[in-house]
Amino acid sequence: MGPGPVHEALAAVRLVDHHCHSVTTGDLDRAGFESLITEGAVWPGVSPFDSPVGVAVRRHCAPLLGLPRHAPAEEYLARRAELGAREVNRRFLAASGTGVFCVDTGFAPDRGTAPRELAEAAGGTAYEVVRLEAVAESVAAGGVEPDEYAETFRAAALEAVRRPGVVAVKSVAAYRTGFDLDPARPSGADVTEAARRWLADGGRLADPVLARQLLWTAVDLGLPLQLHTGFGDADIRLHRVDPTHLTDWLHLIAGTVPVLLLHCWPYLRQAAYLSAVFEQVHLDVGLTLHYVGPGRAGAVLAEATEITPFRKLLYSSDAYGVAEFYHLGALAFRQGLAGLLQERVDADELSLPDALRIAAWTGGDNARRLYGLPPTDTDPPLPSPDRD
Amino acid sequence: MGPGPVHEALAAVRLVDHHCHSVTTGDLDRAGFESLITEGAVWPGVSPFDSPVGVAVRRHCAPLLGLPRHAPAEEYLARRAELGAREVNRRFLAASGTGVFCVDTGFAPDRGTAPRELAEAAGGTAYEVVRLEAVAESVAAGGVEPDEYAETFRAAALEAVRRPGVVAVKSVAAYRTGFDLDPARPSGADVTEAARRWLADGGRLADPVLARQLLWTAVDLGLPLQLHTGFGDADIRLHRVDPTHLTDWLHLIAGTVPVLLLHCWPYLRQAAYLSAVFEQVHLDVGLTLHYVGPGRAGAVLAEATEITPFRKLLYSSDAYGVAEFYHLGALAFRQGLAGLLQERVDADELSLPDALRIAAWTGGDNARRLYGLPPTDTDPPLPSPDRD
Amino acid sequence: MGPGPVHEALAAVRLVDHHCHSVTTGDLDRAGFESLITEGAVWPGVSPFDSPVGVAVRRHCAPLLGLPRHAPAEEYLARRAELGAREVNRRFLAASGTGVFCVDTGFAPDRGTAPRELAEAAGGTAYEVVRLEAVAESVAAGGVEPDEYAETFRAAALEAVRRPGVVAVKSVAAYRTGFDLDPARPSGADVTEAARRWLADGGRLADPVLARQLLWTAVDLGLPLQLHTGFGDADIRLHRVDPTHLTDWLHLIAGTVPVLLLHCWPYLRQAAYLSAVFEQVHLDVGLTLHYVGPGRAGAVLAEATEITPFRKLLYSSDAYGVAEFYHLGALAFRQGLAGLLQERVDADELSLPDALRIAAWTGGDNARRLYGLPPTDTDPPLPSPDRD
Repeated sequence: MGPGPVHEALAAVRLVDHHCHSVTTGDLDRAGFESLITEGAVWPGVSPFDSPVGVAVRRHCAPLLGLPRHAPAEEYLARRAELGAREVNRRFLAASGTGVFCVDTGFAPDRGTAPRELAEAAGGTAYEVVRLEAVAESVAAGGVEPDEYAETFRAAALEAVRRPGVVAVKSVAAYRTGFDLDPARPSGADVTEAARRWLADGGRLADPVLARQLLWTAVDLGLPLQLHTGFGDADIRLHRVDPTHLTDWLHLIAGTVPVLLLHCWPYLRQAAYLSAVFEQVHLDVGLTLHYVGPGRAGAVLAEATEITPFRKLLYSSDAYGVAEFYHLGALAFRQGLAGLLQERVDADELSLPDALRIAAWTGGDNARRLYGLPPTDTDPPLPSPDRD
Repeated sequence: MGPGPVHEALAAVRLVDHHCHSVTTGDLDRAGFESLITEGAVWPGVSPFDSPVGVAVRRHCAPLLGLPRHAPAEEYLARRAELGAREVNRRFLAASGTGVFCVDTGFAPDRGTAPRELAEAAGGTAYEVVRLEAVAESVAAGGVEPDEYAETFRAAALEAVRRPGVVAVKSVAAYRTGFDLDPARPSGADVTEAARRWLADGGRLADPVLARQLLWTAVDLGLPLQLHTGFGDADIRLHRVDPTHLTDWLHLIAGTVPVLLLHCWPYLRQAAYLSAVFEQVHLDVGLTLHYVGPGRAGAVLAEATEITPFRKLLYSSDAYGVAEFYHLGALAFRQGLAGLLQERVDADELSLPDALRIAAWTGGDNARRLYGLPPTDTDPPLPSPDRD
Repeated sequence: MGPGPVHEALAAVRLVDHHCHSVTTGDLDRAGFESLITEGAVWPGVSPFDSPVGVAVRRHCAPLLGLPRHAPAEEYLARRAELGAREVNRRFLAASGTGVFCVDTGFAPDRGTAPRELAEAAGGTAYEVVRLEAVAESVAAGGVEPDEYAETFRAAALEAVRRPGVVAVKSVAAYRTGFDLDPARPSGADVTEAARRWLADGGRLADPVLARQLLWTAVDLGLPLQLHTGFGDADIRLHRVDPTHLTDWLHLIAGTVPVLLLHCWPYLRQAAYLSAVFEQVHLDVGLTLHYVGPGRAGAVLAEATEITPFRKLLYSSDAYGVAEFYHLGALAFRQGLAGLLQERVDADELSLPDALRIAAWTGGDNARRLYGLPPTDTDPPLPSPDRD
């Protein structure tokens, strides 16, 4: 059966993208563009265009640049350069149909957009997500005594989240230590000792004691906490970022802040399990959707939603670097979710009103509820609360 | 293609439900019902009805109460209350088409049915599965010296399994310790020491040495051993209940008792692997099927059966608490397995006689063979062997 | 939709089977045949014919012996015996349409074919893959002092790979230790000490220090390194062979040799991740395809290719023991990959030229590039470079 009313509803929904990033406003040569459409690198003889995400770019992004579907990579890049980054970004952001952008501002590409710029291109509203590792590393870079690190970091994090428009915090502990951590809040002495080592050695925050202190500080801040889980670049040790390794910690923090498991692939079912048994746990499949492409997004979503309560699934693009990923993420989400819901409606396993409710919840209402966003976006958008 | 002869055969088969539980005979208000259709809890704003299992209840259970498909939750619960628990239970148990119930009697809801009551509602026969942790905890509650614990537990377990109608034992070590256990039989001195700590501290049996002693006692009892694996409530640490962590132990007990891996999701392929390389290992996907619902049961079964020998797959509902799960589990199993077998018949990948044989084996013959049950049920049923 | 141009292209492609084994030339009785079509053993009442691979043999291999599809096992075996092993082998090897065989010569069935014999039956060319554990165990069996073990093993491995026709080395560390290894190259003193224990105790090479030394020696040899990962017989501890446990080691060896992850099931997505973020990592789903059968091969390939760069996926049968697996592996691969590519072409998610390019790369070109094989096979084949 072809597209039906669920497809129409999801095509029309103004998305809340609860986790995304800046895109570059700079011009990109082939290597520059390729380096932004892979979690690996650009290797001789193995172009990122020759991968599912590359196929998806040529199929679904080329038409927005006025090219035929499946245009060759060279033509695509030439046309992209001709239009210029700002026009390209505008087209893809507008095409994404995103009404709200919650932007992780702690990691950005060269010449990246400010949150407000992202939102304006789509006629939407921007909010900010504070990456706590960036705050901690900024504290370290600013100079601090080891025995004052914990309190200084806490104060800096509090200050960061009190800025207007901040709706969540995020941790990339997955990249730094993985989740095989002692779940308990570390003692002050342990934190001081770990800070002493880190401040002497420099580098990124990758100490397990400091990672735990960061996660517990996040809990104290009282905002929803986004956690990278699963798939990412080669810094990940994938077997250490199965989110079920957080179970003991999730028990300890029950009744405090919402926890948002980001990406989750390939631990889709593990994340679904946590969302089904812990009140505070929610999940998305951002990043995954554009990397697998619209042709496989339905299968990934079907697995991620096997037992997930419908109030626990959120949309995110996790777009980063190139605006194509805003378009692709939104498209893969709309088509993938519509496909699986419509199929169940057609099989009479699900009623159409229920399918439409699930679509609306997942496309935006769940995020609005969780982050305390206004129930609808005004048009024109509110003055952007981001401070850039 | 629509339903075919495999659907008809599976719709007609009298199932052997080799692992299930009691359901309540008490009346349930909304919170009470909701708490029994989730492995989590009932949280504000996140009703278990708004989840795959809730959708399945409204779609497939409402008609048996005389309501339209997809009836709203409130109407469903009102009609359920109007009919009363005993009539509701009778309808769902009869609809399940189950001929044999192997009931885990060690964990039951408030005002739960006796095994005989379950079976009578379906015109079937009940057998009993002894949950060994319940036996051990009963021994502890009754008072025992640490150095007599092992022998007293063994004697109590022996007595329990010698009761008429007992066909298997079960362990929930998955919930208590996970499977990262030393595979060796613990020494008597180690058991005494662990028992000393446990008997002093009280609580559930969750000591790794005592868990090992329990598993080895199970082997000595000589009956098939059912093991919870994978999905369950928040007491599970999912990454510790991948059944392949039992590999060393499975080598050590080769040639002794059959081992039945229950549920298995999300470790479906891991369980399938074990069933393919260990003579004694069998599996089911009980619990999973009603939680994912009939719309996704085929996908789960397809994954669970990728390499599983056809004599190694059993049916169970793992129904607990509400009789709806007997109906849903049976329906999801019949439709899911029929769908995947018929599809292969239609593609000429499988002959129809082979498909019918696989259906009959899985629906009941494998369990009859494994538990030594009579080859068919008499009608009317045998006097129920359970002692309640 | 039915088969389309991608099916035609994949049906016609002359495959490069980059990892396979010898098949027996001896006559097989029922137990002998059954023992070769399972990773388990032959158990009373559980015939390997009653499993997905058995169904696939009866469906897809029987016609090549002049029998109807789905012929009963007894008829199949009788006809097989009547034709004789050499004729049976010839038929299945020819039917596989394989142009190049890269044969692991370190593990072979009783009365196994030489690589040249395999290739000749298919009108193809044979190359050799040196199994390093076999070299190491041969060094040990030949007598060596512990402090000379490392250098003697290295010299023997160098000699082995310098033989004509050797294109790769292989390790079965997955079977012996799993991948939870210290990634660093072990010190000479540590190797000597470990060798002292091993040479005294005998048995297979299963010491973690010696496994590490073997992997690092592989890197020094400079040839592509094939690694068994995932599914295998009961010697595997499946949870220890998730290839992402190799991540630290893959970082350390960056820029050296290509690494080929073999089989991968059930860690298909984990392997795909590694191939997407490490330049040197490639994968196949050999072994898996014939065990799941053509009816499920498409689903397995779809999962394995979700994010895999198209230059990183290779074909292998991993056939061993019986020539049926050459035919089944090739058939499952051709049909499975064609099904998923054609489906995307039909949905306009992929252009037909791209699909054909992916088919050609995966079916042979990726392997030719990686192993430095001639771009096409001559016809008749080159004089076989294997030395048997």
